[in-house]
Amino acid sequence: MSEKLQVAVAGIGRMGMRHARHFANFTPRAELIAVCSPVQAELDAAKAEFGNIRLYKDYEQMLEQEKTLQAVVVASATTVHAEQAIKAIERGFHVLCEKPISTSPEISQSVVDAYNTSIKKFPNQKVICGFSRRFDASYRDAYRRTANGDIGTPSVFRSQTCDKLDPSGFFVAYAEFSGGIFVDCSIHDIDLALWFFGEDSKVKSVTAIGITAVQPDLRKHNDRDNALGIIEFYGGKIAQLYCSRMMAAGQEDCTEIFGTNGKVAVNTQPQLNLVNIYEPTGIRREIPPDYYGRFREAFITEANEFTASCLDNTAPPLRLDSAVRAVTIGCALQESLISGKKIEFEENGKRVEASKL
Amino acid sequence: MSEKLQVAVAGIGRMGMRHARHFANFTPRAELIAVCSPVQAELDAAKAEFGNIRLYKDYEQMLEQEKTLQAVVVASATTVHAEQAIKAIERGFHVLCEKPISTSPEISQSVVDAYNTSIKKFPNQKVICGFSRRFDASYRDAYRRTANGDIGTPSVFRSQTCDKLDPSGFFVAYAEFSGGIFVDCSIHDIDLALWFFGEDSKVKSVTAIGITAVQPDLRKHNDRDNALGIIEFYGGKIAQLYCSRMMAAGQEDCTEIFGTNGKVAVNTQPQLNLVNIYEPTGIRREIPPDYYGRFREAFITEANEFTASCLDNTAPPLRLDSAVRAVTIGCALQESLISGKKIEFEENGKRVEASKL
Amino acid sequence: MSEKLQVAVAGIGRMGMRHARHFANFTPRAELIAVCSPVQAELDAAKAEFGNIRLYKDYEQMLEQEKTLQAVVVASATTVHAEQAIKAIERGFHVLCEKPISTSPEISQSVVDAYNTSIKKFPNQKVICGFSRRFDASYRDAYRRTANGDIGTPSVFRSQTCDKLDPSGFFVAYAEFSGGIFVDCSIHDIDLALWFFGEDSKVKSVTAIGITAVQPDLRKHNDRDNALGIIEFYGGKIAQLYCSRMMAAGQEDCTEIFGTNGKVAVNTQPQLNLVNIYEPTGIRREIPPDYYGRFREAFITEANEFTASCLDNTAPPLRLDSAVRAVTIGCALQESLISGKKIEFEENGKRVEASKL
Amino acid sequence: MSEKLQVAVAGIGRMGMRHARHFANFTPRAELIAVCSPVQAELDAAKAEFGNIRLYKDYEQMLEQEKTLQAVVVASATTVHAEQAIKAIERGFHVLCEKPISTSPEISQSVVDAYNTSIKKFPNQKVICGFSRRFDASYRDAYRRTANGDIGTPSVFRSQTCDKLDPSGFFVAYAEFSGGIFVDCSIHDIDLALWFFGEDSKVKSVTAIGITAVQPDLRKHNDRDNALGIIEFYGGKIAQLYCSRMMAAGQEDCTEIFGTNGKVAVNTQPQLNLVNIYEPTGIRREIPPDYYGRFREAFITEANEFTASCLDNTAPPLRLDSAVRAVTIGCALQESLISGKKIEFEENGKRVEASKL
Repeated sequence: MSEKLQVAVAGIGRMGMRHARHFANFTPRAELIAVCSPVQAELDAAKAEFGNIRLYKDYEQMLEQEKTLQAVVVASATTVHAEQAIKAIERGFHVLCEKPISTSPEISQSVVDAYNTSIKKFPNQKVICGFSRRFDASYRDAYRRTANGDIGTPSVFRSQTCDKLDPSGFFVAYAEFSGGIFVDCSIHDIDLALWFFGEDSKVKSVTAIGITAVQPDLRKHNDRDNALGIIEFYGGKIAQLYCSRMMAAGQEDCTEIFGTNGKVAVNTQPQLNLVNIYEPTGIRREIPPDYYGRFREAFITEANEFTASCLDNTAPPLRLDSAVRAVTIGCALQESLISGKKIEFEENGKRVEASKL
Repeated sequence: MSEKLQVAVAGIGRMGMRHARHFANFTPRAELIAVCSPVQAELDAAKAEFGNIRLYKDYEQMLEQEKTLQAVVVASATTVHAEQAIKAIERGFHVLCEKPISTSPEISQSVVDAYNTSIKKFPNQKVICGFSRRFDASYRDAYRRTANGDIGTPSVFRSQTCDKLDPSGFFVAYAEFSGGIFVDCSIHDIDLALWFFGEDSKVKSVTAIGITAVQPDLRKHNDRDNALGIIEFYGGKIAQLYCSRMMAAGQEDCTEIFGTNGKVAVNTQPQLNLVNIYEPTGIRREIPPDYYGRFREAFITEANEFTASCLDNTAPPLRLDSAVRAVTIGCALQESLISGKKIEFEENGKRVEASKL
Repeated sequence: MSEKLQVAVAGIGRMGMRHARHFANFTPRAELIAVCSPVQAELDAAKAEFGNIRLYKDYEQMLEQEKTLQAVVVASATTVHAEQAIKAIERGFHVLCEKPISTSPEISQSVVDAYNTSIKKFPNQKVICGFSRRFDASYRDAYRRTANGDIGTPSVFRSQTCDKLDPSGFFVAYAEFSGGIFVDCSIHDIDLALWFFGEDSKVKSVTAIGITAVQPDLRKHNDRDNALGIIEFYGGKIAQLYCSRMMAAGQEDCTEIFGTNGKVAVNTQPQLNLVNIYEPTGIRREIPPDYYGRFREAFITEANEFTASCLDNTAPPLRLDSAVRAVTIGCALQESLISGKKIEFEENGKRVEASKL
Repeated sequence: MSEKLQVAVAGIGRMGMRHARHFANFTPRAELIAVCSPVQAELDAAKAEFGNIRLYKDYEQMLEQEKTLQAVVVASATTVHAEQAIKAIERGFHVLCEKPISTSPEISQSVVDAYNTSIKKFPNQKVICGFSRRFDASYRDAYRRTANGDIGTPSVFRSQTCDKLDPSGFFVAYAEFSGGIFVDCSIHDIDLALWFFGEDSKVKSVTAIGITAVQPDLRKHNDRDNALGIIEFYGGKIAQLYCSRMMAAGQEDCTEIFGTNGKVAVNTQPQLNLVNIYEPTGIRREIPPDYYGRFREAFITEANEFTASCLDNTAPPLRLDSAVRAVTIGCALQESLISGKKIEFEENGKRVEASKL
């Protein structure tokens, strides 16, 4: 048996190919052995790039036939994440599932349930949902300082995930399945809030507002192109979020954690690289055009740490159940965005009924 | 008659003395002729600093006896702003009133009403409320670009007014009369939102949440030390606010205006001056300790432009009625902060009754 | 006799008018009473702006006739700085002379000599040469930290004075009298080096090189548009300079002082104000177009502190003789720039003869 | 025969191990097959880390016995770089030699000569000297803009390589073989100057000065801990350099290229990552502690591009002979630093004899 983790990637569109590259080329302890896609052109492209791998159109066939397979990366369309993840989990494979597990909290929970059942049979099994920012060197530095008490008690959290304007209309079509801007974009910020405030933080209320400044057709899918949300947690912690599809200069993701003794800020001065250009109009720098330009290194770290936890049977780098909590909050924000209502929760997680508000 | 605007300052505590200095020393077209304070020590200090001025313990006496007086700066305690402003307005004096006119929208409106009556008798009379950021060179640069269409349609507004932590407990005592953190701090941000979005922007809803992370005693006065608010305006514009009394490094005031084609950001990288210090712990810069450290130049510009508008009978640099709108929104946010309810408004400005929500 | 310092300005071209404004409008303890210029249009402009002042075409006539005159600001063409300064000094007036006193070290020294003689007769007389950066808040902050030992022993100094490109050819005509780029621009950097390293630092050698990248006609006047210089001081300190007339974005003046335990950097990230503009080409900020855009506040501080030292008979804010040392070093650099030779000095200040090199 | 480039690393001290890792783990098209070191502990460490590789104490033995070997990375002590490189070149291996090839221009040239001879026999052979900055994304961005004409004609170059203070005395011992600070540190800056100004730029003169501010014992080895140099090139281009062993905050490497229409600046605002820390003393960020912290990614790119050029027989990513020019200039600066003399060159590269100066 090989010393390298034997990995297959399901779904090799843009993000799937990136995962394939990270495991094939930048994860020394892993070996990419197979990929699967219903699209022949994607399989051809993978073959051209990776050479000696096996190709499948059918996901279950891959799981059956790859006898040395150990781990599956689920990077297919969001709508099949959960189904594919559960199939791999039930067969005992390690799973790295792209975020979100599902745009539905219930379906997300079903994956957690499947894992909780499966792990009794496969006690070394690792299943994680890929929240890439948890692997980013800057976020980790900020987290380390916060956990170390350098800023006192973290109390206020501000974070934004703002995409570059894409005038092609892509985001309108995408909105049909994305779960909405809070589920698609802010899920990262919500996950960070849970990380910095404590995984077991209980949400008390959420309120959201939004507009369609550049893509009015998003309203067809109950979505917005700019939205603001505020979140109360039990225990005296609050968060504000901004998500957008309208940035001119590029991807603008940043986070601030305000504590009782100080603050850490991540990427509040975005930049593509270390170059400044001095020209008659002033001093200029470019910024990354998309999240991959910002987080490529984090994805590679994710692949390496996931691999190490599988091979060495160590604790996975993050807990699967936090993905459920994040999507639950994201969905509540999305609902508030559309309904215009504040949504409140009891400390046990149950929603306060509207009649009691 | 003198060519210089003859100015008196009412209230010469910390901020009043600064106004006195700005008019006496840095406003070439103005002359400080009198000050008034109920506190003898303050009068002594003013005499020591300004020499040839007249001193009053009684405000009305000053208005009566200063025969050459043309303009009054009201910089007394917020609780008497409106009363003093009205007395000066009714006598035909130009008035520069420190913000807020009042922590009550109704009382604020009564000052506007007094001015609207008085100006029929004194058609050249100028009355403004001192929103200092309107005079800041950076905010003006940002406004000019926005008004010029450089960022497309301004659609999302983010602004924060965050004070340095004062462990003395000052803010607890202060909260009794401040109107609350949204009225005291965020009033500036709200005024900026109205400026950038258009003075006649109509608020549709406000929601706020907050905590007491460092000063639990603020709850005695229905106040908080950190609060987040979101504001919807009719016409597809939204704003998010953060106000705090907990900053470690100094005053952190910043603003971003996101438009459909770009963004302008003001002071998102705060700094005291142009010095960077390289030391074994890294690279460090200091930031202003308080709002005056950040906005001193703006206050001086305010004094000069107010003076010019009085002497030259030109349009005042800002409209008085926007101060009423700002305080109205600030009070609604403060109410939402305490009640936990979202507050909605009809387009005509009337509140939507809770039963209809 | 007036309580305000009675000031006249000689030379009211662009910089002279600025000095006149600083004293008339922004120096509360000073009063501008007269100006002098051979150019009628300049006198007319001053009259229009300042109103109640007296105008002179003849400098000596002004000194004779202004019976209440106390202080003279010499802001005329550099070629007459020394002559006018000496005339005022000999009559016992306080003098603020624009830099440089002269492009010649010998003539500069003659002004110091005149002052040293005059002060015996007028023991309260103040004479300074206006090195504006000494009055800049950022340089002062950096100096305070350095003097306080925060960076250990200051050992290496880097500074640059780089003007925005002026394609009009102005700098070619200007070069005829400017003394050359090291005397005109780098004089400020040299003065700073002497300030940070100690006024009595002894220069050991200078070497310079340069080019004409954009204004080849500068060679007619033995000047260059870009030049680099290095300076050794006795006692183990070194400095590097860059001066230029070629900057695209605006004025780029910055300074770093490297000590044995740290560094202070001034304006290594230049900016016009606190605005950042986000647009499709990236994030942009503007920078000041010229030295006055960068140092206006410093000039005003200079006027106020000069005034205070005259009125209160306190030590002037800087020593006159350091101006001679700065111009001596500047001239040596300019000579090296043209001759291509390294120039060395004995510790007593005498030049090492070429034959001994 | 393997599809992957078969690579051996000679010298597996700190930098050699890094190269080994880059080829073993982060260069998908390469395979690390052997390492060599005279030190058993280093061999043991490599075995522990890389597993299935072969170990050699004798360099020539490795070259003889590794029958599938294709490329050698020379990362041993600088003193044996040239000798080992030549041995590999003569056997027809591809070679990536750490910088500098030698601290002697003549010995450096002998490696170029060996390559020029060898390539007649092995026409596909690639030999490069590892100037890591040429592979850095920021430097490449700056270069691309410069080559594209964005800044007009590049005319003035400023660059510094400044190491963090190491109080252990390491640099004193190291100075015995390093070739001196200009050869060890500034070689990178000189290489960049040749890249940005054009590989065939001819040096006209060099002058250098320096001090020992923190390590006076460096004088035993004719070295300094801080040095400044200026370089004239034929054709109207000039450069200034600063090298130091005294930085408090970390590695401070930065470069500016001033053109007739603009400037590009690389890393003038150094940072470890995207985190800013707000605390009572201000806002702070950390910076990389050493050159590897700054340039790790560049080294990995170097390994990948060297591999690709060997496997695909494409042009190597940089020319070997520029390494000779860089070390020639570095040695001249080092000589000037110690002698105190300016050194001049004819356009054909010959030194102007002192008697003619």
